[in-house]
Amino acid sequence: MKKQYVIGLDYGSDSARSVVVDVANGNELASSVKYYPRWMEGKYCAPEKDLYRQHPLDYVEVMEYVVNDALKKAGEGVADNVIGISFDTTGSTPVLVNKEGTPLALLPEFAENPNAMFVLWKDHTAVKEAAEINQLAARWSEDYTKFEGGIYSSEWVWAKILHVLRSDETVRKASFSWVEHCDWLPGLITGNQNPLEILRSRCAAGHKAMWHPGWGGLPSQEFLSELDPVLDGYRERLYKDTYPSDVAVGNLSKEWAKRLGLTTNVKVGVGAFDCHMGAVGGEVTPNVLVRAIGTSTCDIMIEEYDKIGDKLIAGICGQVDGSVVPGYVGLEAGQSAFGDLYAWFKHVLAWPIENILAKTTLVNDKIKTKLMQETMDAIIVELSNEAMKIPVEESTIVAVDWMNGRRTPDASQEVTGSIAGLKLGSSAPGIFRALVEATAFGSKAIVNRFASEGVEIKEIIALGGVAKKSPFVMQILADVLGMSLKVAATDQTCAFGAAMFAAVVGGAYDRVEDAQKAMGKGFEKVYQPNAKNVEVYGTIYDKYLKLGAFTESEL
Amino acid sequence: MKKQYVIGLDYGSDSARSVVVDVANGNELASSVKYYPRWMEGKYCAPEKDLYRQHPLDYVEVMEYVVNDALKKAGEGVADNVIGISFDTTGSTPVLVNKEGTPLALLPEFAENPNAMFVLWKDHTAVKEAAEINQLAARWSEDYTKFEGGIYSSEWVWAKILHVLRSDETVRKASFSWVEHCDWLPGLITGNQNPLEILRSRCAAGHKAMWHPGWGGLPSQEFLSELDPVLDGYRERLYKDTYPSDVAVGNLSKEWAKRLGLTTNVKVGVGAFDCHMGAVGGEVTPNVLVRAIGTSTCDIMIEEYDKIGDKLIAGICGQVDGSVVPGYVGLEAGQSAFGDLYAWFKHVLAWPIENILAKTTLVNDKIKTKLMQETMDAIIVELSNEAMKIPVEESTIVAVDWMNGRRTPDASQEVTGSIAGLKLGSSAPGIFRALVEATAFGSKAIVNRFASEGVEIKEIIALGGVAKKSPFVMQILADVLGMSLKVAATDQTCAFGAAMFAAVVGGAYDRVEDAQKAMGKGFEKVYQPNAKNVEVYGTIYDKYLKLGAFTESEL
Repeated sequence: MKKQYVIGLDYGSDSARSVVVDVANGNELASSVKYYPRWMEGKYCAPEKDLYRQHPLDYVEVMEYVVNDALKKAGEGVADNVIGISFDTTGSTPVLVNKEGTPLALLPEFAENPNAMFVLWKDHTAVKEAAEINQLAARWSEDYTKFEGGIYSSEWVWAKILHVLRSDETVRKASFSWVEHCDWLPGLITGNQNPLEILRSRCAAGHKAMWHPGWGGLPSQEFLSELDPVLDGYRERLYKDTYPSDVAVGNLSKEWAKRLGLTTNVKVGVGAFDCHMGAVGGEVTPNVLVRAIGTSTCDIMIEEYDKIGDKLIAGICGQVDGSVVPGYVGLEAGQSAFGDLYAWFKHVLAWPIENILAKTTLVNDKIKTKLMQETMDAIIVELSNEAMKIPVEESTIVAVDWMNGRRTPDASQEVTGSIAGLKLGSSAPGIFRALVEATAFGSKAIVNRFASEGVEIKEIIALGGVAKKSPFVMQILADVLGMSLKVAATDQTCAFGAAMFAAVVGGAYDRVEDAQKAMGKGFEKVYQPNAKNVEVYGTIYDKYLKLGAFTESEL
Repeated sequence: MKKQYVIGLDYGSDSARSVVVDVANGNELASSVKYYPRWMEGKYCAPEKDLYRQHPLDYVEVMEYVVNDALKKAGEGVADNVIGISFDTTGSTPVLVNKEGTPLALLPEFAENPNAMFVLWKDHTAVKEAAEINQLAARWSEDYTKFEGGIYSSEWVWAKILHVLRSDETVRKASFSWVEHCDWLPGLITGNQNPLEILRSRCAAGHKAMWHPGWGGLPSQEFLSELDPVLDGYRERLYKDTYPSDVAVGNLSKEWAKRLGLTTNVKVGVGAFDCHMGAVGGEVTPNVLVRAIGTSTCDIMIEEYDKIGDKLIAGICGQVDGSVVPGYVGLEAGQSAFGDLYAWFKHVLAWPIENILAKTTLVNDKIKTKLMQETMDAIIVELSNEAMKIPVEESTIVAVDWMNGRRTPDASQEVTGSIAGLKLGSSAPGIFRALVEATAFGSKAIVNRFASEGVEIKEIIALGGVAKKSPFVMQILADVLGMSLKVAATDQTCAFGAAMFAAVVGGAYDRVEDAQKAMGKGFEKVYQPNAKNVEVYGTIYDKYLKLGAFTESEL
């Protein structure tokens, strides 16, 4: 049989990566990574205002590099036999476009205007607009936020687009519509960027845009105009339908086949958000919770539509038909801080280094910088080593992990973190251990919510930086959950998920599940819960729940 | 009129100091300090076991030095006109003595035996014995712990003496009785150490030994024997009565007049604990709370007996007739951690410095030690500078200060500290500010308890290291209490208080109050509460109370 290959492209916050994969067995022939050049220079951002924009040229240049580079590494005969390309990106990361679908920043007059660029997921300039959307939705006849757990986020498309339209009149006047990052790329390389015609992603342009078949697609024009007259006429400049990622957008255009060194036989799939494709790459199946554990967590499940029907799972942040694996309801939950909690504590502990040691005149600046770096870099590793030695019975500090609010269960930006059970003998490693336990308790609260809502979780698969790098955290997570944790073998689950979708749109497999079975890379490690610790953590978890409930309602 | 002088001697944990004072106006002619030599070598201690013992020779040698040195500095004509000496010491700091009243460690065979030495106040080897005393007291017909708020401490004399008697048979067999540090010194220099005859302090040998006129002095022999038969016969080897510090023990002996360069005309007063004499030196009067604010606080009030009568003030740790100013009831409260809370946070923050930077090979050991020292030394000062800049409205972290348990109101060793309201943006200075506020809230809880028990506090006087050195902490304390705070002008309030008592026993004044008026050094600063902050802190204080009550009852 003739060899067939696919390319998965994963656009993260700082860089994009490609994997070239053998469709038959999932073997990785080559991969390539490149950071966004303008972004790495700090351009078009104002962190003090939570403003983060990315230039479309960053995405384009990086794509050309990582595809060509990976194909070169893959060797002779591969490029001609690539049958599919699929993308995943961060999101919501929307951009304003003109009638032709061109992001405004690609026009000479807007080349340096951040409002004409993609608004990165973590841009929080639209907090006010999100609040307005929530207020309006609360009093509207139809509850458009119903599938978002009742809370529309400032990280999502409508809030961001409204904010940009309000902030910049010239951009507003030049714009016609908006496009999500994951939808723009397939349109671009298939040669059709028309915003009325490109195929939009089920989650990015569906769920995050309050699109639902139940109310005929996007929110009504009345709703949008009531929000702000700048949105007048917007609904008809968008789309009626949204698509799962097993659908092909079209074939690679002549121009892009040339630029990427491929043929025009290549099918390009509908894009999706990184965590959804990551879950597919991590081999999500029904009753398995796939958790991408990094600074925060993105927890994805799929469930048969027949089992859920129209029932809303209370307190989770997303429930979207076909957002992950076509034919299943995708269920999305997550913790708004996981690794970020450890980073926060590191930052607190680093205060004397960054504010006192930084001013010393005892050594020269070069050595000082090295000393500071060396010390700061080792903090989390050394804390973990020490915290690991504390017997679970002596872990008497109880913390709640809501330092960045709570995403699920029951989203709230108002709740805060807390630490109790402190004594004069409480050390930095002891507090760190309590914070690690708190993130695990936050995970347990999510798992328990799924269970109490009738969604059974039989197994947990962990992806992401924390899952791969911290056995200490993962063992505590297994002990707290009382469940075994499988860690995905590949570092590139998102790009691998994209490759699986590319294999489907390229025609190698009929269903995503078949691609998963054939191409999945399996697991590198399984953490088993320690029965004794499971019992102790049961007791501490009750304290976690009490402390959380108290701080939420009383402080 | 002929000039008259007195000497106040203050024995702290690490050193003793003397002040030579003009009786007429309180002017300080000279002072001298000396650290205990054996103690500074780390002898007779085992910090990992909370064992802290001090050799009687340390006390003796240091006394000779600081008296002679101060007199030399005071110049010609002073020594011959000294009319009184009084002592204050830490406590309970008891020692086992033989029939002659000689501390056993002064006998050659026990010269190096820690069990034959003074058991310093902070020695916590007698936790088990204190628990046994509390258990027995709870089921005894007479509640001997009634005036200790129902809780006998492991820092107090009976627990310590019982512990030593049980631990060391040779010491037990050689011993006859026990003596407190503050009672031994006056006996020693007046030439009568007989344990049956020396005058015992009202608080040290009274309150801390469960002595009370209500049950005829010390606890019954039945009680002591039931506690442990090693205490058989102990009651009659002690004392019937206890004395306030305006009583003279006697005149300086010939031997000691020579050793100290004084005359035998010098009267020696009954000793007392440092915080009581400190309150007198800090110019305590009725309705004024004098707070010695250091690692912990010692809060002293006096109240007219007629106003209190036999009513017990609920939840404070001591209520003793004449323990502070003769003729008044001394009321004692305190926080078990104040500056210690800041030191704890410093220790947590210093973890990367002490555990990572300490291992660097980028600089040599000498520079490394300097760098570490320089950074650590600046932590609290720099944190204060930054925390000061945070507007009170933005102080949204709420902490409870029970990291070392709670001394008052309502003593409990079980309660722990907590910090709530944490966000990813919460910085080290923000947390530090919350800890400072927590110590102030702990102070407010004490003040409020006195008020609710009918003891009016009109004014607060602050002494001690924190009071003198941290305007940041003192202003927050004034704002939280909503009261003005006067800071005593002298650094040496304890030694000054001893000097005032010496002036009374020396015959220059009839009453301690008269000595205070004539010799008081006044106040160097008054902190006024900021009305706006008082209001904001009222709200946060409610949260403090709620958080404390929750953690105490639910976790």
